[in-house]
Amino acid sequence: MTTPLRLGIAGLGTVGVGVLKLLTTHAERLKERSGRDIVISAVSARSKNKDRGVSLDEYTWEDDPVSLASRSDVDVIVELIGGEDGPAKALVEAALENGKHVVTANKALLAMSGQPLAERAEAAGLSLRFEAAVAGGIPCIKVLTEGLAGNEIDRVIGVMNGTCNYILTRMEAEGLPYEEVFAEADKLGYLEADPTLDVGGIDAGHKLALLSSIAFGTQVDFDGIAIEGIERIEIADIRHAADMGFKIKLLGVAKLTGRGLEQRMSPCLVPKGSPLGQLQGATNMVIFEGDASGQIVLRGAGAGEGPTASAVLSDIVDIARGYRVPTFGQPADTLRAARPAIAAAPAPFYLRMTLLDKPGALAKIATVLGDCGISIDRMRQMAHADRLAPVLIVTHKTTRTALDEAVSAMEATGVLQGTPVALRIEVI
Amino acid sequence: MTTPLRLGIAGLGTVGVGVLKLLTTHAERLKERSGRDIVISAVSARSKNKDRGVSLDEYTWEDDPVSLASRSDVDVIVELIGGEDGPAKALVEAALENGKHVVTANKALLAMSGQPLAERAEAAGLSLRFEAAVAGGIPCIKVLTEGLAGNEIDRVIGVMNGTCNYILTRMEAEGLPYEEVFAEADKLGYLEADPTLDVGGIDAGHKLALLSSIAFGTQVDFDGIAIEGIERIEIADIRHAADMGFKIKLLGVAKLTGRGLEQRMSPCLVPKGSPLGQLQGATNMVIFEGDASGQIVLRGAGAGEGPTASAVLSDIVDIARGYRVPTFGQPADTLRAARPAIAAAPAPFYLRMTLLDKPGALAKIATVLGDCGISIDRMRQMAHADRLAPVLIVTHKTTRTALDEAVSAMEATGVLQGTPVALRIEVI
Ligand SMILES: NC(=O)c1ccc[n+]([C@@H]2O[C@H](COP(=O)([O-])OP(=O)(O)OC[C@H]3O[C@@H](n4cnc5c(N)ncnc54)[C@H](OP(=O)(O)O)[C@@H]3O)[C@@H](O)[C@H]2O)c1
Ligand SMILES: NC(=O)c1ccc[n+]([C@@H]2O[C@H](COP(=O)([O-])OP(=O)(O)OC[C@H]3O[C@@H](n4cnc5c(N)ncnc54)[C@H](OP(=O)(O)O)[C@@H]3O)[C@@H](O)[C@H]2O)c1
Repeated sequence: MTTPLRLGIAGLGTVGVGVLKLLTTHAERLKERSGRDIVISAVSARSKNKDRGVSLDEYTWEDDPVSLASRSDVDVIVELIGGEDGPAKALVEAALENGKHVVTANKALLAMSGQPLAERAEAAGLSLRFEAAVAGGIPCIKVLTEGLAGNEIDRVIGVMNGTCNYILTRMEAEGLPYEEVFAEADKLGYLEADPTLDVGGIDAGHKLALLSSIAFGTQVDFDGIAIEGIERIEIADIRHAADMGFKIKLLGVAKLTGRGLEQRMSPCLVPKGSPLGQLQGATNMVIFEGDASGQIVLRGAGAGEGPTASAVLSDIVDIARGYRVPTFGQPADTLRAARPAIAAAPAPFYLRMTLLDKPGALAKIATVLGDCGISIDRMRQMAHADRLAPVLIVTHKTTRTALDEAVSAMEATGVLQGTPVALRIEVI
Repeated sequence: MTTPLRLGIAGLGTVGVGVLKLLTTHAERLKERSGRDIVISAVSARSKNKDRGVSLDEYTWEDDPVSLASRSDVDVIVELIGGEDGPAKALVEAALENGKHVVTANKALLAMSGQPLAERAEAAGLSLRFEAAVAGGIPCIKVLTEGLAGNEIDRVIGVMNGTCNYILTRMEAEGLPYEEVFAEADKLGYLEADPTLDVGGIDAGHKLALLSSIAFGTQVDFDGIAIEGIERIEIADIRHAADMGFKIKLLGVAKLTGRGLEQRMSPCLVPKGSPLGQLQGATNMVIFEGDASGQIVLRGAGAGEGPTASAVLSDIVDIARGYRVPTFGQPADTLRAARPAIAAAPAPFYLRMTLLDKPGALAKIATVLGDCGISIDRMRQMAHADRLAPVLIVTHKTTRTALDEAVSAMEATGVLQGTPVALRIEVI
């Protein structure tokens, strides 16, 4: 294997430029580690003349990224454009068609089309790798697919959207309302073009779907994830949670149970002192629980030029070293169809609602809960100046189904203003 | 690759039995993941008739483990005997001689003979892998060698001896003296046959030497590590550290500096709230700082049947999948000789000593420090009942060399009882 490995890189934004820089500054080191030169043959992005702070003089430019896939001087397509359709998908398909390995950071594409793409890659004996798509610089795909290959995985847990964690921890630290921190994050360029991908939990959901597939040997099932975003979290929720010894995190949890595959991505209360509870800012954390390994906790930067490029390089070096591992850890055609769990395991819940201050209002709420078979652990009506009384309830273990029923019934009583916020309390 | 991968397992103790169990219970899963059957051809241990809680009926028994290496029905030798010499070394050498891949959990062997063994393996195109040798169930070798292959590694930090961390955290939690917790750990079977391997920092030193080699592309240099054990830590030190916001951990640190390769394994003060500070019990933590990835923190069980077997399986599955990566991440014959740093980077230090309660004693100590160019951040003489006054000093940044000089000079003053305890305060 002394021939160079030749790359075609599509997308020269944050990640693409990071990859270019690493390949240049670490060329010698990469050669020592992978046993061969890793070179860039050609690149592509939208605008040829944009100043990207790096020189592209030594690489052939392609206006159309898909053309990279038919170049005879390219062994590996590195797809860093993004998007579940469009040029990214066309490029990956063309690459596999033309016998090129693919490295991508594109969680949306894989969450949507991972199954057919992986099948195509494996039928052609090609690698399709995506370390950078999940949790940025943390090599969690490798840890799960290879490092824990000897385990039955019991559970996958993760905080995998740095922007949401940034928003939540900044709201807490500065006592700022959601809207203000959101606007701030937007100004700092932390949010995707469509911010609901971040704050709506969709981006993190894509990542969870990919991890689930590897962990449980099931086909990627993004639609099977119960997703809730952080949009309705108020500073009051963060404060109440803190009073009770919890933090609020946008938490992904996946496990294979007798009732089917449980996958959820939602804001949850986690113990303040736990590794998850202590996660600050844009940092990500991924936890795997294996039957033999026990709990393995991984922490690191979830995004950014350097960390994401580091993950892309890990895949490239594997390919340079001649390593071929199936995209989802076992041949894609052996992955079982995911059977979504009918309901998540019961848990205690945190409920916050606003009561119209009428006589008997609180009693009505308590009655509804009782009628739905939900018992109350704690209940508190907050001091209030106007006619709207904030009420806080912590339930004993109950199912999400019972809780949703109760919430509908509560709204029907006419004593509430707005819809209650319900957050699961996760025992880690 | 539809032929089975055939193993010869030597050593059927904690780890060996764990590996047997995983191979049996997870046979189907392992086949799906690695694309072929993984089978055990033959096994060996000291006593054939020992009850190990697992059946060995289906495997050929070899009285002499080294004989496994010449069996034609064995592709991979799994060495789980232990020890830097003796049958473990003889077996690994014979295996490489006879064209068998080797998977081992033996840090002592690799820390001592890793270089020649890796060279031999690579010359023969064989794998020599050791995931289980460092930090038990945490796939840290894989993360460093493969997951972070695109980085220049700035620093490696780790708490990698579970027994020491168990002793230190238990002393703190229960307020028990070192001797008592040591005896307890011994009774629980937590200590190696030669306990200085654990509490003397040698076992953790072996692990650090292996990580350093991969991180910095240098030959394994165990002798270059400045090693101190935890034997002199008293409950008083743990309490004083806690008062100042620190925990005491047996900490390994390696970095490549302009002054050479700095490697040390010693009890240090780390901030209470940091991931390292929060590490309880026998858990291990390994931190890699890459120039692109930033800080990657890995946490998990550092020992035990399941976690260690999980790591062994990771290596076996890699071999089954056809992956060949050099033992230390780049060909062993390209590793540079390590040039040990003359001195570690300066740091603040914690000093505890016992002063004979004579007039002017404290002044003498302060003078010695001043003479050695060490400035004092805090100094406190504790209340005491007898003529022995405990004194606590926190210095500003200074070198270990200056500190060692100062300690000698202090002892020469004749106002001390015993030798001061000096602990580095590590800024993570
Ligand atoms: N940023 C992160 O921290 C991060 C972390 C993990 C994963 N990812 C993933 O990595 C991928 C890239 O993200 P990014 O942050 O680097 O995005 P980005 O900064 O927006 O860059 C996207 C690049 O794609 C090019 N591009 C867009 N549409 C194109 C088209 N139709 N034809 C050709 N080129 C086109 C753009 O060209 P111009 O520059 O000419 O406009 C740009 O260079 C995405 O899948 C993302 O989800 C990013
Ligand atoms: N235990 C852990 O948690 C852990 C974690 C990481 C790494 N490791 C490493 O894994 C290796 C094994 O550790 P372990 O805890 O499993 O040790 P163990 O429980 O003491 O088992 C050692 C095994 O080796 C066999 N053995 C000893 N001397 C032998 C000889 N001369 N010929 C043939 N067999 C011999 C013993 O046979 P008998 O059973 O017949 O006496 C026993 O089965 C060591 O290198 C250790 O450092 C252990």
